[in-house]
Amino acid sequence: MDILSGTGPVLVIAPHPDDEVLGVGGTMARLADAGREVHVCVATRGQPPQFSDDMVASVRAEAAAAHAVLGVTRTHWLDLPAAALGEHPHGAVNGAIGGLVADLGPDLIFAPHPGDIHLDHQLVFLSTLVASRPHQADYPATLLAYETLSETNWNAPYLTPAFVPNVFVDVSDTLDRKLGAFAAFESQVKPAPHERSVEALRALATLRGATVHKQAAEGFVLVRHVA
Amino acid sequence: MDILSGTGPVLVIAPHPDDEVLGVGGTMARLADAGREVHVCVATRGQPPQFSDDMVASVRAEAAAAHAVLGVTRTHWLDLPAAALGEHPHGAVNGAIGGLVADLGPDLIFAPHPGDIHLDHQLVFLSTLVASRPHQADYPATLLAYETLSETNWNAPYLTPAFVPNVFVDVSDTLDRKLGAFAAFESQVKPAPHERSVEALRALATLRGATVHKQAAEGFVLVRHVA
Amino acid sequence: MDILSGTGPVLVIAPHPDDEVLGVGGTMARLADAGREVHVCVATRGQPPQFSDDMVASVRAEAAAAHAVLGVTRTHWLDLPAAALGEHPHGAVNGAIGGLVADLGPDLIFAPHPGDIHLDHQLVFLSTLVASRPHQADYPATLLAYETLSETNWNAPYLTPAFVPNVFVDVSDTLDRKLGAFAAFESQVKPAPHERSVEALRALATLRGATVHKQAAEGFVLVRHVA
Amino acid sequence: MDILSGTGPVLVIAPHPDDEVLGVGGTMARLADAGREVHVCVATRGQPPQFSDDMVASVRAEAAAAHAVLGVTRTHWLDLPAAALGEHPHGAVNGAIGGLVADLGPDLIFAPHPGDIHLDHQLVFLSTLVASRPHQADYPATLLAYETLSETNWNAPYLTPAFVPNVFVDVSDTLDRKLGAFAAFESQVKPAPHERSVEALRALATLRGATVHKQAAEGFVLVRHVA
Amino acid sequence: MDILSGTGPVLVIAPHPDDEVLGVGGTMARLADAGREVHVCVATRGQPPQFSDDMVASVRAEAAAAHAVLGVTRTHWLDLPAAALGEHPHGAVNGAIGGLVADLGPDLIFAPHPGDIHLDHQLVFLSTLVASRPHQADYPATLLAYETLSETNWNAPYLTPAFVPNVFVDVSDTLDRKLGAFAAFESQVKPAPHERSVEALRALATLRGATVHKQAAEGFVLVRHVA
Amino acid sequence: MDILSGTGPVLVIAPHPDDEVLGVGGTMARLADAGREVHVCVATRGQPPQFSDDMVASVRAEAAAAHAVLGVTRTHWLDLPAAALGEHPHGAVNGAIGGLVADLGPDLIFAPHPGDIHLDHQLVFLSTLVASRPHQADYPATLLAYETLSETNWNAPYLTPAFVPNVFVDVSDTLDRKLGAFAAFESQVKPAPHERSVEALRALATLRGATVHKQAAEGFVLVRHVA
Repeated sequence: MDILSGTGPVLVIAPHPDDEVLGVGGTMARLADAGREVHVCVATRGQPPQFSDDMVASVRAEAAAAHAVLGVTRTHWLDLPAAALGEHPHGAVNGAIGGLVADLGPDLIFAPHPGDIHLDHQLVFLSTLVASRPHQADYPATLLAYETLSETNWNAPYLTPAFVPNVFVDVSDTLDRKLGAFAAFESQVKPAPHERSVEALRALATLRGATVHKQAAEGFVLVRHVA
Repeated sequence: MDILSGTGPVLVIAPHPDDEVLGVGGTMARLADAGREVHVCVATRGQPPQFSDDMVASVRAEAAAAHAVLGVTRTHWLDLPAAALGEHPHGAVNGAIGGLVADLGPDLIFAPHPGDIHLDHQLVFLSTLVASRPHQADYPATLLAYETLSETNWNAPYLTPAFVPNVFVDVSDTLDRKLGAFAAFESQVKPAPHERSVEALRALATLRGATVHKQAAEGFVLVRHVA
Repeated sequence: MDILSGTGPVLVIAPHPDDEVLGVGGTMARLADAGREVHVCVATRGQPPQFSDDMVASVRAEAAAAHAVLGVTRTHWLDLPAAALGEHPHGAVNGAIGGLVADLGPDLIFAPHPGDIHLDHQLVFLSTLVASRPHQADYPATLLAYETLSETNWNAPYLTPAFVPNVFVDVSDTLDRKLGAFAAFESQVKPAPHERSVEALRALATLRGATVHKQAAEGFVLVRHVA
Repeated sequence: MDILSGTGPVLVIAPHPDDEVLGVGGTMARLADAGREVHVCVATRGQPPQFSDDMVASVRAEAAAAHAVLGVTRTHWLDLPAAALGEHPHGAVNGAIGGLVADLGPDLIFAPHPGDIHLDHQLVFLSTLVASRPHQADYPATLLAYETLSETNWNAPYLTPAFVPNVFVDVSDTLDRKLGAFAAFESQVKPAPHERSVEALRALATLRGATVHKQAAEGFVLVRHVA
Repeated sequence: MDILSGTGPVLVIAPHPDDEVLGVGGTMARLADAGREVHVCVATRGQPPQFSDDMVASVRAEAAAAHAVLGVTRTHWLDLPAAALGEHPHGAVNGAIGGLVADLGPDLIFAPHPGDIHLDHQLVFLSTLVASRPHQADYPATLLAYETLSETNWNAPYLTPAFVPNVFVDVSDTLDRKLGAFAAFESQVKPAPHERSVEALRALATLRGATVHKQAAEGFVLVRHVA
Repeated sequence: MDILSGTGPVLVIAPHPDDEVLGVGGTMARLADAGREVHVCVATRGQPPQFSDDMVASVRAEAAAAHAVLGVTRTHWLDLPAAALGEHPHGAVNGAIGGLVADLGPDLIFAPHPGDIHLDHQLVFLSTLVASRPHQADYPATLLAYETLSETNWNAPYLTPAFVPNVFVDVSDTLDRKLGAFAAFESQVKPAPHERSVEALRALATLRGATVHKQAAEGFVLVRHVA
């Protein structure tokens, strides 16, 4: 009946672990409940010295817990260098994401918003767009950009691409699981009034929902839909 | 499976007769083939002295023929003054379109693009937006803006809203009917190389199709979709 | 220390009563607490048959109560025709708002966002801009556009001007009064999940606050500031 | 050799007298020097009680003097109501401007910028665009929007269309005549630092020139050029 | 008489071979017919292992054939690394393109559109802009951005710069040669309905033509023109 | 009383020496006169072979003289590679600027405009934005983007972010010192009509001033202000 009602695999691409939950958590749970295969791709891996192997392992355990809450089918780790995609060969990022898209054949993809302040987000968006381009008969029918608290709202108003949602997904029934999944990312959650707090995430869901007369929603920007 | 796969009534709002065919003809035929109720609303009526009653009747006969080709369920004539909506009370335009939306309860609406050069198109878009706003539990789940050859491309690049399609509907199977329906508007069709010619309409369909690897497509801009 | 720290009168221009509270309520209370003169101008008056004199009187009583909660110095009613500014002479709207600006000599003005779905909002913004233009030595040093739940988010994404706040006012200490003032507009408040509900208004304040690490904030778009 | 090097008539459309000099004065003189027919169309006429017949006559005398300095071939007065185009039938504005375009058959048209703060400017632009649309074999090959000090810079940054020039005309040799023509509009010239002052106009010419390494230039936004 | 009517050399800058034909083929033939020197600069060279020396040689032979059809004076190969400009020193790209511009002294330059999905296109545009900046008396008077099927339409609507043509060149007389030149790129042409097919290219020319009442046209976005 | 009236340190970030004077010179002098600590950060250092050590030393001496004229408290040299920030690790640029912001704790930051043609400007802007994000209780309350003659106006109109000032600082009393400081950069000043000339800089100040009825002003785009 709507843009979510397909049957093929779904792929959510996160530059760093927890982006996928902040932006698409409630929708992922709804899709999983509906029987869809839901894949998460985490594009980067924290690099030493900022991130030790232990820290990486710890965040991955958090992700596993969060993804279990949401019903994620499988999590794919691309291990590209975090906070360093700008220096990594663009072709290699294209190749890593493009390879996964080719393998899974998703008909619905969620990518970070190109207007996010984090350069990794901008570059992952571009590579996802390249991987999804309609240059052959088979390609993802729908590509949506999601918003990420603490990335999307911190860019420069009117000077960088704005996030103005035109697709709203009712997550009234899955918001609790989304917030629970986010809480599972103990290393990433910040206390209010930080924008990456449970309280801010709940407020965003309430606001996006109210815009379309729902208790809770996630907002997206449509990049392309082919019917 | 996609944005067209609902079951409720569909409403295509045309400022003047033939806009609906230029922008949505192939999609209307596809929806009708799929068993959907497809309604066309023509917002305005030509006014004397430019348009005599005979001319109005003649265009309506053309519209009837075109709509029959496409499988339109019913055509609604609002009889607002053509080329004079700017002087007509905005509340009255809102009321006329809003009343029809309330009566039909469509879940999918097509409106002209607000960046069209014709002021009537801009005002019909705004009133459709008002009529579709999510201020109660029940409202149209999807609102799409369509393009109109000889209106959309003649506005001022970068100074007025651009039409950049993000929704593409495959009309490979219904393009011939679309072109036939447009040809039925004998009073409106112009010889090539006019933009309102059959040749231009076919080229547009080929181009929009090629963008998404289809033989023919219609392009739209998503205004809102709620899932 | 900041854009609010002047000493002259403040003027908040509302197309219809309650817009000023939705957009600027917390900031008005903060400014009043700081000893500033805070004026509200309501541009329009509901017209029969939609609005009886009794209804108008009732809304004005609600406004009086709300404004008292916020510490508003004085409320000015321009009595322009509500939902009909598009047919009212533009010069007359300019004149009414321009006259008030000339009389009060505010150094800080708040206007509705020109990207709101309601034509009245768009026209009141334009007339406020005209009234504030720097065509003589004395003019308002600061002009800010505010957002209005149930108007700002219901316009057409990417086709109409987006509201992307670049000024944030901490209203942690006055949010309760803002919500109380809004609740005083009994005829206008809607139950959740309507966007014009107390719950949505609170969520918006939480989100705008979180963006700048505050418990609650109101967001604005700067139109002009002269230092 | 460039966008100015045609041979047909040139038409400069001014909402009010002096706009044409502020925006196109130096270019008009250059075109007249090159032997082109240069027509000015003043769209509106000041209305009582703000403008008496004497005042109108006086401004027209100033215009005649200014246009003589610039070598204008003929000035056309459309006598539409100044500061009231919003209430005048849009079709009538289209008709008046369209009629003149049809009569003169210009191949180069200059129109006010649609992002100007004055509604008359916005509406004159739209009607010029309608009059110039390529709906038949013969139409103006080039349409440029010009900037008007005290109108263009006083609109709302990022919320209304920005004037960012992409066409620059070297007026090093005609700037003095432009400033002289503007000075002839004694009733309109303001003392510095008003934006409608000779000093501001000179500064603008210096800046636009410096952007393209010329002593003085006028900047325009290209709406359409057909080669 | 128009933007093409100069006498100096013309330079078309292509990120990869065939871009220049897709975007500017008909215009190049028209300029060559008019006796202009037409230079093509191909910025990059395919790299192993994706591209062998044989493949590179083969594509260059195709380019030679295509350019002969169009009357290109000379083709310049910069041999920058294809699909890897993001990792190549920006200064080196600037230097390579800037050197060629300095050598040739073109008065008309065509560059790829900065909103294309391919990062190479974005970077070649930026370097061309740097090479053309008016920082001395002598610089290219006109800079136009062209569109490239399979690159321009596959970016993200409303989130990346849109291609909305404001310059149209009538290529009714040279379209056949353009299509022939494109067909010469056997390794690059795809069968319909791919966007990089002869059919799509013909449809684009028909549509761009119809917009300005011509049998066929190429559309461009003006970056800068100095008269 | 206004956006400048704080008490904390001010930080002006220049990609290359003299950008800070071109964009913020008059405002820096005004702030210094008001007793504020004014810091300049020059992000890059010229690299051999284009720039010898002697040349670098010479420019730094010019900067010292210019900054003395303006009352700059201290100049910080980050020594990142000039004209090569695109190849430098983004994290390292973030770290260098972020470290200085953390050390100084400014409440007001000026950054180059992200729409400047120079890639270094774009990247310095982004890193400044990252350094200023509100991810903890303490962060710069105000972030403004400034314009740089010979960088800002040479980008691609409507395809790259436009500079449309919404903050104006009256520099009538300090313009002479600004022009004097710029003249101190003997190696950078160009003769008129170059855009990086004293004459162009004076014209810009006159124009920005006239827009807000001042003898001279500097214009800025507000990125964020928290009150």
